[in-house]
Amino acid sequence: TRKQLPSVEAFMEGILNFNRTLFSQAITLVESALPEHQALAQEIIARCLPHAGKSVRLGVTGVPGAGKSTFIEALGTYLTGNGHKLAVLAIDPSSSRSKGSILGDKTRMEGLSTHPNAFIRPSPSAGSLGGVARKTRETIIICEAAGFDTIIVETVGVGQSEIAVHSMVDFFLLLMISGAGDELQGIKRGIMEMADAIAVNKADGDNKSRAQIACTQIKNALHLFPLPESGWSPPAITCSSLMGDGIPGVWDTITEYIRFTQTNGYFRLKRQQQSKQIMIDSIDQRLHDHFYLNPEIKTALRQIEHKMLADQVTPYQAAAQLLELYFRAMGK
Amino acid sequence: TRKQLPSVEAFMEGILNFNRTLFSQAITLVESALPEHQALAQEIIARCLPHAGKSVRLGVTGVPGAGKSTFIEALGTYLTGNGHKLAVLAIDPSSSRSKGSILGDKTRMEGLSTHPNAFIRPSPSAGSLGGVARKTRETIIICEAAGFDTIIVETVGVGQSEIAVHSMVDFFLLLMISGAGDELQGIKRGIMEMADAIAVNKADGDNKSRAQIACTQIKNALHLFPLPESGWSPPAITCSSLMGDGIPGVWDTITEYIRFTQTNGYFRLKRQQQSKQIMIDSIDQRLHDHFYLNPEIKTALRQIEHKMLADQVTPYQAAAQLLELYFRAMGK
Repeated sequence: TRKQLPSVEAFMEGILNFNRTLFSQAITLVESALPEHQALAQEIIARCLPHAGKSVRLGVTGVPGAGKSTFIEALGTYLTGNGHKLAVLAIDPSSSRSKGSILGDKTRMEGLSTHPNAFIRPSPSAGSLGGVARKTRETIIICEAAGFDTIIVETVGVGQSEIAVHSMVDFFLLLMISGAGDELQGIKRGIMEMADAIAVNKADGDNKSRAQIACTQIKNALHLFPLPESGWSPPAITCSSLMGDGIPGVWDTITEYIRFTQTNGYFRLKRQQQSKQIMIDSIDQRLHDHFYLNPEIKTALRQIEHKMLADQVTPYQAAAQLLELYFRAMGK
Repeated sequence: TRKQLPSVEAFMEGILNFNRTLFSQAITLVESALPEHQALAQEIIARCLPHAGKSVRLGVTGVPGAGKSTFIEALGTYLTGNGHKLAVLAIDPSSSRSKGSILGDKTRMEGLSTHPNAFIRPSPSAGSLGGVARKTRETIIICEAAGFDTIIVETVGVGQSEIAVHSMVDFFLLLMISGAGDELQGIKRGIMEMADAIAVNKADGDNKSRAQIACTQIKNALHLFPLPESGWSPPAITCSSLMGDGIPGVWDTITEYIRFTQTNGYFRLKRQQQSKQIMIDSIDQRLHDHFYLNPEIKTALRQIEHKMLADQVTPYQAAAQLLELYFRAMGK
């Protein structure tokens, strides 16, 4: 009863001419865990690569309640209205789609989701962050080959997923809201320093002056941070996704950053560094997994760790003992 | 002409009774790269372990010019004057001792260096950060076995070495100075969020009010950060190493932190996490090195990386090709 899949050629034809059905089906293949789907997906990705890389890749994060979906809807409507072709992806390793993950709720981004030049895809279903991130990266390649010039990757501001998103985008936007106290407690340490800009959202109505105060506080805090490698000083700005105020300003900031980093060479450098880093991380992760999956290591680890925590061996000695065991087992 | 080394027993007797000559010689062994020195050093460390772990381990960092040496001299003089036994170590992978690394300048910490209850050791000579960090960790064990109740590990606020120091201490102090603009540019991103307290140094004379303003600015910035895992809110305080003002206050903050984290269990948890993390990192590093030292990988890497940067393969595909090659070579 298995349905015959289209050929690689049919997929490529569909992607490059943006046939929405074939395009979506290709992304489903990328997300699939089935080996035959993966084999086909890898072929498609390899064929898409020469057509990819020409979009602006934008990461958006913020605590729950910061209004990420409404913001993306507002920015996306602005962009599609100005002739851009926009794909919105998401990374949320904690969610499975059926549970209504970020972007999974069909009632959200209603205007954007029906626009012919917009494509919205919820997070690949639950799995390791590495796996979810890989699927999203590969989806970006297919989107770019299909002519999307702007990619937004959304994530929630509470975990390691920000680091994953940061490692696959050109520009990383942190959404905040006024009340710099409790509401910010959900932001993971270090996220603020990763941002290329911070936008204080919900600067409307009664909240407008509070948002402006928060924005000033954030500006002062950003002033304490050293200049990032890009040479770009991350600004803090206010916006209202509800009223649309400041949304063109956010986009102007992004395009200004892109121009700035394309001029000083950082844009290209960052993408190359990202590629190298994924390769290195991917190798390290596989070496790590291979080590800990070794049955002899599994047995010995607990015992040696116990000795270490009882201060009978140092962590370095524990590591050396395990490595000796591993390389002996490998050489057999 | 090789000098006969004392036996492990002689070293242990010397360390546990704090014979300064044997104690220093044991640390020299730890720092030595010679295999026979390392073998003896590892035996000594293993024998010291049951006597170690009872000190307060304190990391101190700050930009060049923040007055780290003067601060440590002031804090150290205060501590030794109150009956503490203090070891001051340093981590600076960029330096070789002959070039006068941090703590290497004999004219610095003059008062402290001659005190019978103080021990000052410059950074182990230049090498990989991992190697330097390991030697410092092992030196801490020997110092603790020799009865030092307080260990200060100093580093410069400009590189990865802060992360290494942070991973080996109970309390991490960031020294800053007034003028929150240019002077802070040298602090690496993320360092501020690692601090358990920030002390604004040089709060004396004409500079006093500026230091107090800087301290308030830093307090406001710290307020934006989420609460660390320890549950401890990092305070910002002023001090003058020159006049001694605020030095007892810094120590009170440290002891309060130690009490706080010993009560809530974080103190022990953090040390156990540190041990496990070193073991894991040490294994990962060795697996990484083993991979990249493989001659077949060396040859293939350049070629595959080139294809990747030309967008002919994805980073994941590049990683998979190299891993296949490596595991095939290993199984031979």
